[in-house]
Amino acid sequence: MAKKQLNIGIVGYGFMGRTHSNAFLQAGRFFDLPCQPVLKAVCARNVERAKSFSDNWGYESIETDWRKLVDRKDIDLIDIASPNDTHAEIAIAAAQAGKIVMCEKPLGRNSSEALAMVDAVETAKVANMVWYNYRRVPAVVLLKKLIDEGRFGRIFHYRAKFLQDWTISQDLPQGGEGLWRLDVSVAGSGVTGDLLAHNIDTAMWLNGPIREVTAMTETFIKERKHNLTGEVAPVGIDDASAFLCRFENGSLATFEATRYARGHKALYTLEINGEHASAFWDLHDLHRIQYFDHRDEGQVRGWRDIHVTDGDHPYMDHWWVPGLQIGYEHTFIHQFADFAVAIDTGKEAAPTFRDGLATDYVTDAVLKSARTRQWENVSG
Amino acid sequence: MAKKQLNIGIVGYGFMGRTHSNAFLQAGRFFDLPCQPVLKAVCARNVERAKSFSDNWGYESIETDWRKLVDRKDIDLIDIASPNDTHAEIAIAAAQAGKIVMCEKPLGRNSSEALAMVDAVETAKVANMVWYNYRRVPAVVLLKKLIDEGRFGRIFHYRAKFLQDWTISQDLPQGGEGLWRLDVSVAGSGVTGDLLAHNIDTAMWLNGPIREVTAMTETFIKERKHNLTGEVAPVGIDDASAFLCRFENGSLATFEATRYARGHKALYTLEINGEHASAFWDLHDLHRIQYFDHRDEGQVRGWRDIHVTDGDHPYMDHWWVPGLQIGYEHTFIHQFADFAVAIDTGKEAAPTFRDGLATDYVTDAVLKSARTRQWENVSG
Amino acid sequence: MAKKQLNIGIVGYGFMGRTHSNAFLQAGRFFDLPCQPVLKAVCARNVERAKSFSDNWGYESIETDWRKLVDRKDIDLIDIASPNDTHAEIAIAAAQAGKIVMCEKPLGRNSSEALAMVDAVETAKVANMVWYNYRRVPAVVLLKKLIDEGRFGRIFHYRAKFLQDWTISQDLPQGGEGLWRLDVSVAGSGVTGDLLAHNIDTAMWLNGPIREVTAMTETFIKERKHNLTGEVAPVGIDDASAFLCRFENGSLATFEATRYARGHKALYTLEINGEHASAFWDLHDLHRIQYFDHRDEGQVRGWRDIHVTDGDHPYMDHWWVPGLQIGYEHTFIHQFADFAVAIDTGKEAAPTFRDGLATDYVTDAVLKSARTRQWENVSG
Amino acid sequence: MAKKQLNIGIVGYGFMGRTHSNAFLQAGRFFDLPCQPVLKAVCARNVERAKSFSDNWGYESIETDWRKLVDRKDIDLIDIASPNDTHAEIAIAAAQAGKIVMCEKPLGRNSSEALAMVDAVETAKVANMVWYNYRRVPAVVLLKKLIDEGRFGRIFHYRAKFLQDWTISQDLPQGGEGLWRLDVSVAGSGVTGDLLAHNIDTAMWLNGPIREVTAMTETFIKERKHNLTGEVAPVGIDDASAFLCRFENGSLATFEATRYARGHKALYTLEINGEHASAFWDLHDLHRIQYFDHRDEGQVRGWRDIHVTDGDHPYMDHWWVPGLQIGYEHTFIHQFADFAVAIDTGKEAAPTFRDGLATDYVTDAVLKSARTRQWENVSG
Repeated sequence: MAKKQLNIGIVGYGFMGRTHSNAFLQAGRFFDLPCQPVLKAVCARNVERAKSFSDNWGYESIETDWRKLVDRKDIDLIDIASPNDTHAEIAIAAAQAGKIVMCEKPLGRNSSEALAMVDAVETAKVANMVWYNYRRVPAVVLLKKLIDEGRFGRIFHYRAKFLQDWTISQDLPQGGEGLWRLDVSVAGSGVTGDLLAHNIDTAMWLNGPIREVTAMTETFIKERKHNLTGEVAPVGIDDASAFLCRFENGSLATFEATRYARGHKALYTLEINGEHASAFWDLHDLHRIQYFDHRDEGQVRGWRDIHVTDGDHPYMDHWWVPGLQIGYEHTFIHQFADFAVAIDTGKEAAPTFRDGLATDYVTDAVLKSARTRQWENVSG
Repeated sequence: MAKKQLNIGIVGYGFMGRTHSNAFLQAGRFFDLPCQPVLKAVCARNVERAKSFSDNWGYESIETDWRKLVDRKDIDLIDIASPNDTHAEIAIAAAQAGKIVMCEKPLGRNSSEALAMVDAVETAKVANMVWYNYRRVPAVVLLKKLIDEGRFGRIFHYRAKFLQDWTISQDLPQGGEGLWRLDVSVAGSGVTGDLLAHNIDTAMWLNGPIREVTAMTETFIKERKHNLTGEVAPVGIDDASAFLCRFENGSLATFEATRYARGHKALYTLEINGEHASAFWDLHDLHRIQYFDHRDEGQVRGWRDIHVTDGDHPYMDHWWVPGLQIGYEHTFIHQFADFAVAIDTGKEAAPTFRDGLATDYVTDAVLKSARTRQWENVSG
Repeated sequence: MAKKQLNIGIVGYGFMGRTHSNAFLQAGRFFDLPCQPVLKAVCARNVERAKSFSDNWGYESIETDWRKLVDRKDIDLIDIASPNDTHAEIAIAAAQAGKIVMCEKPLGRNSSEALAMVDAVETAKVANMVWYNYRRVPAVVLLKKLIDEGRFGRIFHYRAKFLQDWTISQDLPQGGEGLWRLDVSVAGSGVTGDLLAHNIDTAMWLNGPIREVTAMTETFIKERKHNLTGEVAPVGIDDASAFLCRFENGSLATFEATRYARGHKALYTLEINGEHASAFWDLHDLHRIQYFDHRDEGQVRGWRDIHVTDGDHPYMDHWWVPGLQIGYEHTFIHQFADFAVAIDTGKEAAPTFRDGLATDYVTDAVLKSARTRQWENVSG
Repeated sequence: MAKKQLNIGIVGYGFMGRTHSNAFLQAGRFFDLPCQPVLKAVCARNVERAKSFSDNWGYESIETDWRKLVDRKDIDLIDIASPNDTHAEIAIAAAQAGKIVMCEKPLGRNSSEALAMVDAVETAKVANMVWYNYRRVPAVVLLKKLIDEGRFGRIFHYRAKFLQDWTISQDLPQGGEGLWRLDVSVAGSGVTGDLLAHNIDTAMWLNGPIREVTAMTETFIKERKHNLTGEVAPVGIDDASAFLCRFENGSLATFEATRYARGHKALYTLEINGEHASAFWDLHDLHRIQYFDHRDEGQVRGWRDIHVTDGDHPYMDHWWVPGLQIGYEHTFIHQFADFAVAIDTGKEAAPTFRDGLATDYVTDAVLKSARTRQWENVSG
């Protein structure tokens, strides 16, 4: 018996368009999905690029106006993989059209955009998800499981970083194709929304809500040529952002993201210290987790380097054999597989838009604190 | 203009059937292939399993007799992903039928089978390849490039290991579905053909031919229940195998493989020491290579931990962005992509069957030395 | 010709008394000192302990009143290895008596104590040094050299942590023998003065002055039994302390210290990110430094793991042969060896009391910011 | 009450003369020795060097003829730290004179020299020890303890390497001061006696006797200028040596040592794989051990990185506080401290001369096998 089709229309053809499309195609090969994803259409303003993308990934059709995509009756799910400044408008329209909505992170450029998006999907009662993909790294899922089992006891500390080095050169322009992340009007913010948002989403999933923050941001290179205008213009984004915070559970934390940490490409790291146990993970070796359990016998107590590739590790029984690792793109495959099941059963699959909003409240507080030079409470 | 189709028929539906099928499907999404792979048929004796596999991967048809598959006019390429004892017969028939042939490693259960296979493909002048996939790990390809650039100078040492621990339990049966690697009549040998063959293939690719070996093997658990007969029977395979050797270039080497190294799942490691430089790689962190160059300035000389995820690293410009790693399955995708190009241009793509034979000559010498307790020359 | 004697009187017999005494004895075995250190006297209120310590280390005499020690004409150098609340009084008296003064860190319990100490030694024009021993780790000295050579270019980021886990238990008492670090009246502060002070001293040595800070501190366990009174009393020290800061050179930094990071015993880590290069060091593997230089050729660019044991590494030609590591205590030996040379040549040897004061200004600002919840400027 | 003196005369003033002298001086500061070591005399043919060494370490007198040293009534213990070709003659004379004898490793240049030495000390019934110092690395002692507790179950594999790179240059001369290790007549062999002997001593201590070996050796640079004659002469030592072996307990092993492994200074590594557990150690991070226990709960099973600096780790309660590491020289301090206790109680302290002989039997078999190209049994 053939499975029910899940007809997908995607907006955007960039880096995230690729990761999402790959997830739609691969999920069913490795997971027993309740539905059959069908790549109905890709939407992009540039018809050449839409065509090229469509040819590569096997989309059935193309659109150049996202409003037409949203209006199509043959589409069940709108996936938003376009720049941040398009998220809110598309998501709200899609929800109003009764579509399932998936959206790249951050949800909005700020919490007011995100709040409107949450209102839209909740009013329309449509399934929704934000692509905070690092929640589906097997090692991170294992960590969540260990925390939920109570192995850490009272949590004292959390720390997270996201270090990159790709914008150090003064010669790098801002704005336009492939560089919209440097244009504050499109991106909303710099590393705070792009990188810290990932750290914060995972952190609140693992350690609960954040109460208050004190932050600093910096723009190291003050002016860059803008690719759309050809003129040198002030840089509006934050190149680096760091904050101290207190979680609701009483733990203390430090967060830091930057694109000026030479030698690091995508070094997302996190560590949690509890009364009984601690754990550490980093994206550059995403298939490993370091775990320390103080209740181990003293003389052989040590940080356990867990190679998260075994059959009893999250998601891994779907892949190869123990010892053989998976990579970055698999996190999107896992996320879509989980979402497909959630849609089928009528349950929510986190992170929902509401979860995405919670992160935007924190990034708003971070950016505000950097301006006011005060501790700021997190709304929501 | 539509690309020319490359019609594929696969024999086998196990672990390797999955990795190959995934490669056929994914290669075109990430590489600009000169052809369009089409999954025409999967062949397996068990019709249920063939059906299930076919449904999952999208094969157009199934066969239960590989001879029928080989006879089909609508198939261009026969891919052999079935147990070792079937390789020679299928490959020879496929070659005689004029098919392109891909074959899982080891090529034959021994060099005489492999030699017959080489004769068949060379006589028929059909493109051929053995799936020694570790030649397509980006880090290993980078190492090959560095060696070819002459950075190491005279080579003094090579060492390789492949450590697993999955057969330590006395309760594990031998033979039959999923366990044929423990049945000597099917597998040909134990870890020598299964694991050392990988080490040897890479080693000769990187460091040239092996001249002579002295070896020891051991079967730690002497009897196991056989799943096909239900009776306890002597174990014919080698559980562990190690050898010393000399390469033609004068370097010395140690090799070791075992399934009794507790704590290691698939720890393929290799190290090469040259006059000017050394390098180390291991499969558990396959996206990294350790590289030491003595010509670096003294006070800052150190082992460089190269995260092989940058755009100027082999194959990586086809994947994501710097810092984001790929995994095990990608080696098969790379291999098929290279092979598709080779077929199109009429060139060979290593490792050919002849390369596979060279490895079988070494494994034969290893097994012989373990019996004779003498140094043995490598044939070929 | 016999060397001139340097007659030493030490106050304190605890952990630091041992590291200093060992340094006095070992320095001359491995370094060509201009003087012969002579262990004239140890001073401690408890005569039994003074005797036992003296016997072990070979001190010629004991004193039970530090004032008598300071008054002795046969003593050239007073070394203060007693708890923090004694530093100022002893150091000032020793300086006034014309003695060379060495003092354990932190210099004072706060900057006003430290300032008085600086005034005393500068007025008396006596040689002086604070035992911030981590400046003499060969790997850290190498890092300082690389920075001074301009290899990093503009500095964007600095980060440092000092993580321990020894006070997590509620049952640990505060105060008295071996536990004075938990008694705020003796220690002055908790981890801020004990651990962060180390981080700050090294940081300012490597990266220059700190301009402003915003901080948070926490006392996780609010009450502990006090060992001197036997009663449960509020805990006055900070168990954890973290701050964000800006250096004068425009770089941003995060600092964190805690005694509640399960799994870490003395994990002092530091990282610096510059325009061209980055480096990382940690105390748990103190003989290594990680160094990344972006000017390395792209395809072999990586973090260099430098095993700082070679003959061209700082201090290492005085020890064994390349590859053989030294440990913690050697940092004190190096420091005393350098100080002995400085005394002989009439030069200063950093960190002087004035350097110690600079660190106290930062720790004062950190503690103040934690109270005011404001950014605070660093005095001095 | 003063402790009984243990009067020491040392032969040799090189690298090992320094490590031993340091051990004699430091042991009593950190361990409660039953005796007071007294540095009575150093013996060296070159009176200038003897004087200089004596001044540095505080020996009371010098001798230029070891026979005079052995004849001195005021000396209890003769410590042999001179080149290998002097070990047998001095040790035998010392034993015959009733002295306690400590000898650098390897015991003899070959097993026949070693056997004569064993006969001498056993006939004379004098306490004796060989300085195989790596048995006293805290991490290695911990490993021994874990093995003795039965945690590993049946042992399947052992592997050890000792990799250096200091003789790669063709320009390095052989023989004479500081280079006698390259002169076969003095050293007895190359890396087999110098490096593999360490690997073998530890291996047999941990895993029991070795039954048989098959080996290969190589001299990469065939001729070098000899420093004593000034002429270019054939190199008689082995630059590299590797062997396969079987232990009496049925486990298989690989051993390898070389001075041609670029990037490694003193990389002694060992790994043991048992039915239940595995462990790994290396000298470049000697304060750590990697330990894997299969009986750990599956999902959190991993290699434990044990920082062997805690109070319940071997020897570590004598040093600093948890987290602070010790280095290479401490292994000699531990060894002497243990020996001092053994002398006092009349017990043996391993490794005795008889243990040293056992290693020489293995190195003899290795060198023989390399010549005969056969498996060779180990005598003894």
